[in-house]
Amino acid sequence: MRVIVVGIPGVGKSTVMEEAARRLNYTVVNFGTVMFEIAREGGLVEHRDEMRKLPIGIQQEIQREAAERIAAMDNVMVDTHMLIKTPGGYMPGLPQPILMALRPDRIIVIEADPVEILQRRAGDEGRRRDADTVETIKEHLELTRMAAIASSILTRASVCIVRNPQNGVERAVSAVVEAMRG
Amino acid sequence: MRVIVVGIPGVGKSTVMEEAARRLNYTVVNFGTVMFEIAREGGLVEHRDEMRKLPIGIQQEIQREAAERIAAMDNVMVDTHMLIKTPGGYMPGLPQPILMALRPDRIIVIEADPVEILQRRAGDEGRRRDADTVETIKEHLELTRMAAIASSILTRASVCIVRNPQNGVERAVSAVVEAMRG
Amino acid sequence: MRVIVVGIPGVGKSTVMEEAARRLNYTVVNFGTVMFEIAREGGLVEHRDEMRKLPIGIQQEIQREAAERIAAMDNVMVDTHMLIKTPGGYMPGLPQPILMALRPDRIIVIEADPVEILQRRAGDEGRRRDADTVETIKEHLELTRMAAIASSILTRASVCIVRNPQNGVERAVSAVVEAMRG
Repeated sequence: MRVIVVGIPGVGKSTVMEEAARRLNYTVVNFGTVMFEIAREGGLVEHRDEMRKLPIGIQQEIQREAAERIAAMDNVMVDTHMLIKTPGGYMPGLPQPILMALRPDRIIVIEADPVEILQRRAGDEGRRRDADTVETIKEHLELTRMAAIASSILTRASVCIVRNPQNGVERAVSAVVEAMRG
Repeated sequence: MRVIVVGIPGVGKSTVMEEAARRLNYTVVNFGTVMFEIAREGGLVEHRDEMRKLPIGIQQEIQREAAERIAAMDNVMVDTHMLIKTPGGYMPGLPQPILMALRPDRIIVIEADPVEILQRRAGDEGRRRDADTVETIKEHLELTRMAAIASSILTRASVCIVRNPQNGVERAVSAVVEAMRG
Repeated sequence: MRVIVVGIPGVGKSTVMEEAARRLNYTVVNFGTVMFEIAREGGLVEHRDEMRKLPIGIQQEIQREAAERIAAMDNVMVDTHMLIKTPGGYMPGLPQPILMALRPDRIIVIEADPVEILQRRAGDEGRRRDADTVETIKEHLELTRMAAIASSILTRASVCIVRNPQNGVERAVSAVVEAMRG
């Protein structure tokens, strides 16, 4: 099974995903890392921060190749984003042609309380100052659900919404594991 | 006109749909029943509960054939689901290829108050014990709207949201009839 | 860049869009007007209110031609609707084939408080009596977001949600301008 795992920054996605993958004997694959490896193999970049300087057409080509590479894998959790918040708006991380190439079986959406998300982000050193408010975090969570459902209609993947409350990681991990076995 | 009628368990879909169909002189066709008939005609199953044991590829083939069979009908209300809640998450009842084969003109989404839905389900004998809460029912209602709108963009079908409150069946039926004539 | 600007009646879309276009040196193109021009050039209609009397198939053909005509333009803001409220339900203004022909880079959704929307509509002389309530306006706003996100997944366009509060036009215009430059 190929599972897409998404969640906006601060929901605690990595912790939940990695522990669930460990229990299920799944491999976690980061979509962006696969893209970077393809670009490096092709001699297009040496460092990851050069990726965004590539022409858009090339980036999209690499994105599709990454999706195809991952589609050849099984028992894999794909660490990626439904909607990336940019100064130009919410950018779809998995637009239609990429979804169709990726052929996911499940989409797991990790969510958390907007106030807790803000607090987690504030405690996260090294992060640039965050302009988000509880309102914009709510918006990002809501739009992510919409993108997950649209992706589900396009791909037949089922969608699981998993809440990851403060001090509730164990329950979130169990919910992911159960959904994967369901 | 071909109309898809959806609503999560407990909204009172059947009552509203059947009375609206009667007034409009429409036929109600259950999508799952058409699938079963196709499988039985093909000698694949004898009983309805054997359907889910068929290989996924066969099930999808039957699903598409059902959509094509219904697409040949007119003045029909299609009783089906946008998102089926399973242990593995919300599964799309009408993924893109099925929608494209079905070519609906309208999508009618029957909704009710989450608390009333819980109460109706509790009073429904023969139903297995329900793990849903007001929160998860709200989620299912919200995701169903999202799936209906994504389906609308894919098919050009217009979407009607019809509320079916306790003691308000007559108003719900009228709303469906008006939307169909609109 | 081609930007789709949408917003339900009463959010104050025109004011925000036109001022943002002026500052960015963009042209505002009304989708419906382009459709009318195509129909008039083809000798199909003389007046705009004849458009809706054309056979559906012809209307869809004109819609696609309008999308292609606009797709050939650059630095353009397309004034249109995600979901048009009709007696038969919410009709998608930009169904999939039209979106694919239009190839937008951005979708800007202008929103406002539902109560303010009702008040603006009430003050709008010449408008036919409005049957909408705060509840149905909330519904229309929510479904519009869903349609925008589904369109984003289909087209790769990024989505910006811009709030236009009473006495906040300047901030709304700035938000649009920043999103366009972002």
